[in-house]
Amino acid sequence: MERVFDEELQFLKERLLRMAASVEDALSLAIEALKDQKEEPAREVLKIEENINLLDVEVDETCMRLLALRQPMAGDLRFITSAMKISGDLERMGDLAVNVAELALDLARLPLLKPLIDIPRMARAAQAMVRDSIDAFINRDEALARDVCIRDDEVDALDDQIFRELLTFMMQDSRNIQRAVALILVSRNLERMADHATNVAEDVIYMVKGKTIKHHIEKKGLPRTPEKES
Amino acid sequence: MERVFDEELQFLKERLLRMAASVEDALSLAIEALKDQKEEPAREVLKIEENINLLDVEVDETCMRLLALRQPMAGDLRFITSAMKISGDLERMGDLAVNVAELALDLARLPLLKPLIDIPRMARAAQAMVRDSIDAFINRDEALARDVCIRDDEVDALDDQIFRELLTFMMQDSRNIQRAVALILVSRNLERMADHATNVAEDVIYMVKGKTIKHHIEKKGLPRTPEKES
Repeated sequence: MERVFDEELQFLKERLLRMAASVEDALSLAIEALKDQKEEPAREVLKIEENINLLDVEVDETCMRLLALRQPMAGDLRFITSAMKISGDLERMGDLAVNVAELALDLARLPLLKPLIDIPRMARAAQAMVRDSIDAFINRDEALARDVCIRDDEVDALDDQIFRELLTFMMQDSRNIQRAVALILVSRNLERMADHATNVAEDVIYMVKGKTIKHHIEKKGLPRTPEKES
Repeated sequence: MERVFDEELQFLKERLLRMAASVEDALSLAIEALKDQKEEPAREVLKIEENINLLDVEVDETCMRLLALRQPMAGDLRFITSAMKISGDLERMGDLAVNVAELALDLARLPLLKPLIDIPRMARAAQAMVRDSIDAFINRDEALARDVCIRDDEVDALDDQIFRELLTFMMQDSRNIQRAVALILVSRNLERMADHATNVAEDVIYMVKGKTIKHHIEKKGLPRTPEKES
């Protein structure tokens, strides 16, 4: 019985690893489509995302089955509820990769605004955060999870820098506007991907420590919820 | 024992209702700040969002406690895992309201680009989706949940229309660019809020029917996950 349960937890880990690898692949292809103005890799993203969705449903159903049949306690319970949440985050990262791919398809029909340097850099930073957040989950590595949370600020800074640069492009020449707006939206999607990786990392810290660091409650202490008349 | 459990489920419902009402309030204030170029309502949003975060942690901890101590089965289990997910969605809607409030603060210092009609309309549509998705959860109302899912398309169409109109404004006069981009981002945040309400509605349908409609798997049937060499 114990052994079967361990195998099921192993199955969950393997599925989440596969989802994370698919998110990374999808984002690589979306960025390739964007940089090289190719349609084929963008279309590939849509297929990968469908597979991510199926994995999400599979993880969710496995978690529900484990909760119902195994009635896990403490650490195992936190592992399973974390797996459910992480699967949801990975699924949404798949959606974001699709958004980028669709923007790449729009842009493939127009001349390249400029050679892309910062956006691919930002994408690599987001991918590394995804990979590390899942590795932190698999290895219960709290230090790595905290590192992911810190790196979110770097991605936010890149997003800000890209935004300002693209605004300048638009001001200079109104023919740049449509393409620049599309690239701003790409950058926002990457920033949100990093946010989701940060959510995963926060879930890992919760799982390992048994208490939440979401919303910086760790620092402030959790006060009584203020009562509000409604 | 049974009665205590029912009270705890009631407590969860009440907390989620309060979160949803706070999300609606936050969005109303953010839109008021945007329309009337006032800073005070935008700052109010930040306070409300802190409260939403605390409620999220409270719901999460309550759900974990119920899973650990009550070992709920079937319907109750689905209710509790749905409550966890819905709380996560509401918490992210709070973040989105903050994004809108911050954009409103940026815009309050600049002349109004144009009287805002479509963005407040879109906000009202998103708010109604939030309210109805939570009502559907509380009342286990599958029909209402399905209605919410359908209305997501209307919000997407509004987002698209707003995007196109603002592009035109930018093309006409480069002095419009900064403000128009900010409004495009507002519109995208509203569109994401509607997406989260749709997620909630999908969770409700799952809870009621015991099977997922996420990713339109209901229509296509859930195939075996394709094996992929990695």
